[in-house]
Amino acid sequence: MEDMTFVLFGATGDLAQRKLFPALYNLYIDGKLPNNISIVGLGRSESSNEDFQSKVEHSLHAFSRRAVQPSSLQGFLSKFRYCAFDATHEESYRHLHELIESRENELDIPGNRVFYLSVAPSLVEVITSNLHTSGISQPEGWKRLIVEKPFGSDLESSQQLNMKLSKTFNEEEIYRIDHYLGKPMVQNLETLVLANPALESLLDHKQIANVQITASETVGVEGRAGYYDKAGAIRDMVQNHLLQLVMMTAIYLPKKITAEEIRAKKMEIIESIRPIPKENVYQNVVRGQYESGEILKAPVVGYKDEPGVHESSKNDTYFAARLYIDNPAWDGIPFYIRTGKRLKQKSTRIVFEFKNKLDESDGEGITPNLLILEISPNESISLQVNMKDLSSNRFEPVCINFSTNSKGQPEAYELLLFDAMLGNAAFFAHWKEVELSWKWIQPILEAFQEDLLPLASYSAGSNGPEEANQLLLSDQFKWW
Amino acid sequence: MEDMTFVLFGATGDLAQRKLFPALYNLYIDGKLPNNISIVGLGRSESSNEDFQSKVEHSLHAFSRRAVQPSSLQGFLSKFRYCAFDATHEESYRHLHELIESRENELDIPGNRVFYLSVAPSLVEVITSNLHTSGISQPEGWKRLIVEKPFGSDLESSQQLNMKLSKTFNEEEIYRIDHYLGKPMVQNLETLVLANPALESLLDHKQIANVQITASETVGVEGRAGYYDKAGAIRDMVQNHLLQLVMMTAIYLPKKITAEEIRAKKMEIIESIRPIPKENVYQNVVRGQYESGEILKAPVVGYKDEPGVHESSKNDTYFAARLYIDNPAWDGIPFYIRTGKRLKQKSTRIVFEFKNKLDESDGEGITPNLLILEISPNESISLQVNMKDLSSNRFEPVCINFSTNSKGQPEAYELLLFDAMLGNAAFFAHWKEVELSWKWIQPILEAFQEDLLPLASYSAGSNGPEEANQLLLSDQFKWW
Repeated sequence: MEDMTFVLFGATGDLAQRKLFPALYNLYIDGKLPNNISIVGLGRSESSNEDFQSKVEHSLHAFSRRAVQPSSLQGFLSKFRYCAFDATHEESYRHLHELIESRENELDIPGNRVFYLSVAPSLVEVITSNLHTSGISQPEGWKRLIVEKPFGSDLESSQQLNMKLSKTFNEEEIYRIDHYLGKPMVQNLETLVLANPALESLLDHKQIANVQITASETVGVEGRAGYYDKAGAIRDMVQNHLLQLVMMTAIYLPKKITAEEIRAKKMEIIESIRPIPKENVYQNVVRGQYESGEILKAPVVGYKDEPGVHESSKNDTYFAARLYIDNPAWDGIPFYIRTGKRLKQKSTRIVFEFKNKLDESDGEGITPNLLILEISPNESISLQVNMKDLSSNRFEPVCINFSTNSKGQPEAYELLLFDAMLGNAAFFAHWKEVELSWKWIQPILEAFQEDLLPLASYSAGSNGPEEANQLLLSDQFKWW
Repeated sequence: MEDMTFVLFGATGDLAQRKLFPALYNLYIDGKLPNNISIVGLGRSESSNEDFQSKVEHSLHAFSRRAVQPSSLQGFLSKFRYCAFDATHEESYRHLHELIESRENELDIPGNRVFYLSVAPSLVEVITSNLHTSGISQPEGWKRLIVEKPFGSDLESSQQLNMKLSKTFNEEEIYRIDHYLGKPMVQNLETLVLANPALESLLDHKQIANVQITASETVGVEGRAGYYDKAGAIRDMVQNHLLQLVMMTAIYLPKKITAEEIRAKKMEIIESIRPIPKENVYQNVVRGQYESGEILKAPVVGYKDEPGVHESSKNDTYFAARLYIDNPAWDGIPFYIRTGKRLKQKSTRIVFEFKNKLDESDGEGITPNLLILEISPNESISLQVNMKDLSSNRFEPVCINFSTNSKGQPEAYELLLFDAMLGNAAFFAHWKEVELSWKWIQPILEAFQEDLLPLASYSAGSNGPEEANQLLLSDQFKWW
């Protein structure tokens, strides 16, 4: 890996403490950082380098997946410098530029620069435009921009944002983080069929009845009502994470292809998702909002009673939809997706349901075969098959499954930071993917805004609104 | 189920105590015995009915898979009567006939009679012929004969035995027990594909590289040298159990068919096994004999030092072979079978190895996918797949598996006795299967007798002779 400067905007924020510093540290102890790397942290408050380094150290003790090794700690911390920074002040960029260059000289680092924006969406434009005018983003080597969601709040705003970013960075230089793409089980989807010929025929569509993607949370808005009440589940989870999972699930790669070809495949898929016109949204989408209930036997308030939420809010804390991918492979096979807050269980998983040959008249107890890929909180693959219980002569579904020891697995941010530093964009969202996602989402957003479908309610701690069950029942299916 | 008389020859023997009485009892508490059943136990020694019943009770306490229920015990024991019996005495048959008829009258049981022969092979002919001459086997209702292996000791002797049996019993009346066919996982093979469309494509041959069937034991000859040193692994395990497992494994039933059609399918398969001419046996078969070694860290003697074994014995305690089923489905896919005593592990299992697309150059650590059906001592299904370890970027084989709680499962003899009493012959060996098995075995028997292949040696506690590894290596495979 080439030597580089890593500039972190938002270095005093939550994501930096919880995820980015620990990810960098774990890469460091695995020898996966460049030999010479200059890491510059930016934040609004004044701070000395020493104070910043001890803040980094503190975050490692609190959040690193592996224990901090005293022998490697100082070497790691010595790479960090701090720069107080106001994104709207020209002066700040001059300071930053000087710091970057003086460290490049000191450490003999060529002008390769990564800019990680972990900042409020409103600051993204001003920072990238100032990076350009200040000259920081015209180094002698290469430059890369890593950005977090949200990428806009609808189709138009995302296009505008992208237009502005693209004045400073080419598409090839932009790494849009979707941390779901960093999860080991999701990254395994790419090689799942190729590396496992036994799964090739299993997943070759002929026998698949439907695919179900679930991302359920037990938490509520967690003090983020200001953001969440505007975004809703549809922007917070569906436009990005769930649609990325749809793409990764629908990808079927029995042959080895390049990272570029994988991204092209993903684009083909998102382009093939059958649009849901605004007037049909009510038939294919369920939006819901939680009422009071119980989570882990403790009472919790309903969404409207959460601090910061208006009592007349029609915001969606639950989203379910039926979608079709109109390509020959997935012709006629429904994908059901759902996500929500304050549900019974925290789980992200993909379930392939297979067609049945027998029914209850042939064998009591027969149930569909399922291939279940659990992404979080545990990683596992399970295959549910029917075995005859010979004492009762009934069929019983049994689950053959494997769980990884997820302790040894790198975290999503580790994998993604490493790829970005290496210049491997396979697991980042291309602009076209983002744009096409927004295109598919847009009529649904409008149907929500225009109130063209009811807002279903569900109790906190339940499996979601009854309307979501009806959505599958109308196709003679059920959620798994 | 119709009321009947169940006549057990060899009621004081080991099999009766360990397996048959407990099986009958467990059927009884499940309500699977006929309302009226008369059970007559025969043995050489004199004994009262009361003593015999307490012997039965004793065996239940010692060997029943479920605890004896005091409330149901007397009802069960009251069905048993004892008759001292000498198989060569005409007088014995008269007594037996009287006892059967008086119990039939007493209990108002129609003349339906099951004869279970748990006796030395030498007595089978004399008993069946006397059953005929005494008139016992001409009841007003139906009659059935249940026999245990061995069915002869080579092709000719098995044909002679069958000819003699068939003077008293029609083929449809003969239930040849192969207790491997009573094991729940083996019985599940029949519906495995039908009930699990997900496995249909997995097992549709296209992607199968080879099939491996293993039945390994840790025990030695266990004081049965008199029988075993004449039989060898080939007669004790291969001609019956292993070839039955080959038939059940090669059966591929995506549609529902009758028990008769299943037996016809099995016959087609055994008829399609490519014969190994005597002069080619050395290329396709490994015979071995154990030397001293260690089992569970305890030293054990070699086969030739076992009590009752002649020091120049060339008897096979290990057998491995490569065979091909010459039908369109299994064209070119080798089956490897092996069995042996004093091996490292006690295990009966079927492994399907799938073809690989990647090799080590594409992904370090890649291994073939395996579908593993473990039959005993535990029942389980496992699928071994390759998952990428994202910390090392190596593939790692992970095993997704399911184990039944075998405690709740009926034992083989329970299932088989129930089927025989019901008249369901699906899981019994048809004479044609037995005859065709002997036909396939015969040239190998002769090659052994004429010493046309070496006797390989292996240490007790090992995985068998090196020659068995070479057999697979020559096809670029290895044992799993």
